[in-house]
Amino acid sequence: MSPSPNRHLIGQPVAVADFATPALLVDLPVLKANVVTMAKLAARHGRALRPHAKAHKSRLIGRMQLDAGAVGICCATVREAEVMAGAGLDGILVTAPVVTPAMVARLIAAREHVARLAVVVDGEAEIDLLAERARLAKPIDVLVDVDMGQGRTGVSKAVDAVRLAAKIAATPVLRYCGVQAYYGHLQHVPALEDRRDRVAEQWRHLEGILDALGRAGLAAEIISGGGTGTHHLDLASAPFTELQPGSYLFMDAQYAAVEVAPGGSPFHRSLSVATRVVSTTQPDRVIVDAGSKALSTDAGPALIASGAPAAAVYRFMGDEHGAVVVTEGSIRPNLGDLVTLVVPHCDPTVNLYDHFHVVEDGRLVDIWPVEARGH
Amino acid sequence: MSPSPNRHLIGQPVAVADFATPALLVDLPVLKANVVTMAKLAARHGRALRPHAKAHKSRLIGRMQLDAGAVGICCATVREAEVMAGAGLDGILVTAPVVTPAMVARLIAAREHVARLAVVVDGEAEIDLLAERARLAKPIDVLVDVDMGQGRTGVSKAVDAVRLAAKIAATPVLRYCGVQAYYGHLQHVPALEDRRDRVAEQWRHLEGILDALGRAGLAAEIISGGGTGTHHLDLASAPFTELQPGSYLFMDAQYAAVEVAPGGSPFHRSLSVATRVVSTTQPDRVIVDAGSKALSTDAGPALIASGAPAAAVYRFMGDEHGAVVVTEGSIRPNLGDLVTLVVPHCDPTVNLYDHFHVVEDGRLVDIWPVEARGH
Repeated sequence: MSPSPNRHLIGQPVAVADFATPALLVDLPVLKANVVTMAKLAARHGRALRPHAKAHKSRLIGRMQLDAGAVGICCATVREAEVMAGAGLDGILVTAPVVTPAMVARLIAAREHVARLAVVVDGEAEIDLLAERARLAKPIDVLVDVDMGQGRTGVSKAVDAVRLAAKIAATPVLRYCGVQAYYGHLQHVPALEDRRDRVAEQWRHLEGILDALGRAGLAAEIISGGGTGTHHLDLASAPFTELQPGSYLFMDAQYAAVEVAPGGSPFHRSLSVATRVVSTTQPDRVIVDAGSKALSTDAGPALIASGAPAAAVYRFMGDEHGAVVVTEGSIRPNLGDLVTLVVPHCDPTVNLYDHFHVVEDGRLVDIWPVEARGH
Repeated sequence: MSPSPNRHLIGQPVAVADFATPALLVDLPVLKANVVTMAKLAARHGRALRPHAKAHKSRLIGRMQLDAGAVGICCATVREAEVMAGAGLDGILVTAPVVTPAMVARLIAAREHVARLAVVVDGEAEIDLLAERARLAKPIDVLVDVDMGQGRTGVSKAVDAVRLAAKIAATPVLRYCGVQAYYGHLQHVPALEDRRDRVAEQWRHLEGILDALGRAGLAAEIISGGGTGTHHLDLASAPFTELQPGSYLFMDAQYAAVEVAPGGSPFHRSLSVATRVVSTTQPDRVIVDAGSKALSTDAGPALIASGAPAAAVYRFMGDEHGAVVVTEGSIRPNLGDLVTLVVPHCDPTVNLYDHFHVVEDGRLVDIWPVEARGH
């Protein structure tokens, strides 16, 4: 990846005229606080933490999470696993099925760098593919993926979970470790009590599966699930041994719109996009250089964090532009001024960038590559 | 950027089990045909063509367009201009204002590689910034950006266009060349006749501005506008000397939903995303590995091009997953099968990838980098 055009500005305020935009910013003290907060919450509730790298795709951030006590790192793709394992980040869990010989081969190759690597399966064919390529000296840990009501990957019925677990357990080069039980679709249920009711329904379903596994002599040692939106409920009551939240590091507009926890979210927004005013010819708005190639478009508009009046709103205006709409009589930003935006949805927004611009007290202190960006 | 994991498969069918997904595919014969079709249409109507690189961000594709007779290449950002100019692609036009000293310096540096480089302005401050840094030996061409009803960048009033043109013309290191008149917001008006009425309204507005410029001794030599959606109307009747379409190379679902030309679009879909079935546990759908990090989310769902029954539909299911929903009784794709998707919107989808996988008769024939991807 090309280096950031802002690398010569390390040490300077982000607000300097030369700072190239649009740029992904991460506030370092807030990021660190979020890392520590989740680690402490997990420890207090006796849960392990295996945060999800899909949110950050960064070796450095993964390392921060491990240093704060995480038992490993979740990866959504084999590519993410290669990147993280290649840097020696151990305890990798690949949270989606791997279904071709070539992808399994890459997984096995990534396994060479670490002490433990796990992957989920939801069918016998996937187990066969792994068995053909794994080797006894470096067994692959395998979790059965359980559908927690999302209708995406995973098995729903106890009989299928037991069948898969038994097959894994009977395969010498694989190590049956338990289940993944992820409810991504429940992370943004707006009201906490509704979210509680819906996750509790899934816990009951999961407990039936765990009982069946136990009765079959295949008790789950690892039960991996949960996310940022359900963390409060998961920590208190879910039948998980470990949690796999990702977005808590950064937060975003999508999470700002839901009740994350009683009394407010314990995780604060560390992520933003810096954009600059590039045109001031319109009467009721200024135009900035962040559009749909700088902010994900799956979760509504960006919010204004700084650089414009409180009542100003952001609107997408194409791939490379947005409007900051200002009410009549309020102070308009000037041509060239910096505006910072709360991103609509952190994970796919991070995926648009090659670099995090790390900020402390308004100053650029470092630039971290988004190593596992893209495909 | 990391090389594509598919590079060892050049020469093989894309359908081989090892082909890593999700992957951006471009059908080479169709791409070439689209390049030629637009070039011929432009020539037949006596218009120059300066296609927009924002769609492809690829030096190789830009070179194809120049070789087919384009007078230059439009770029949405200074970064795109650097990448294209750095490969000697001449006749660059930067179609958005450049508003900081650092970005102007980068533009001037890119200018060193080519014979002609132009940029648009919509304010006097931008002209001053250019004037401070351009040099007589390599003047910068400047176009006045005219707002064609979009409410984004550009001036609306003739008096402002004349004022800016006069200022440019009075600056020795700059060369006043004319205007840009882009109506991006009209490209997808569904019915051709409605689109005709709306662009005609803008043409009348533009003609007033062109008259005023002429009367002021500042006649526009270059009048640059238009896009894929309005090409038919622009070629026939717009007061443009040159067109700047981008998407015609690739086409997408968004353009499939509008009436591009009488009798259908002369440009055919060359772009698709290859995705693989990664889970088959659900009764009414299979799950594929293309989600919102593989397909832009600003223009509805992807469409199914191949690999699933005609009535199957795609639905996003997160960052790394999608569902291919199959009607009861129809044949479901198998685990590991390849499905190809028509992308919702080509420009921001291309921007998610580091490589085009170039396909001919179902075979991977080359891999081209998306050099100007990202920021």
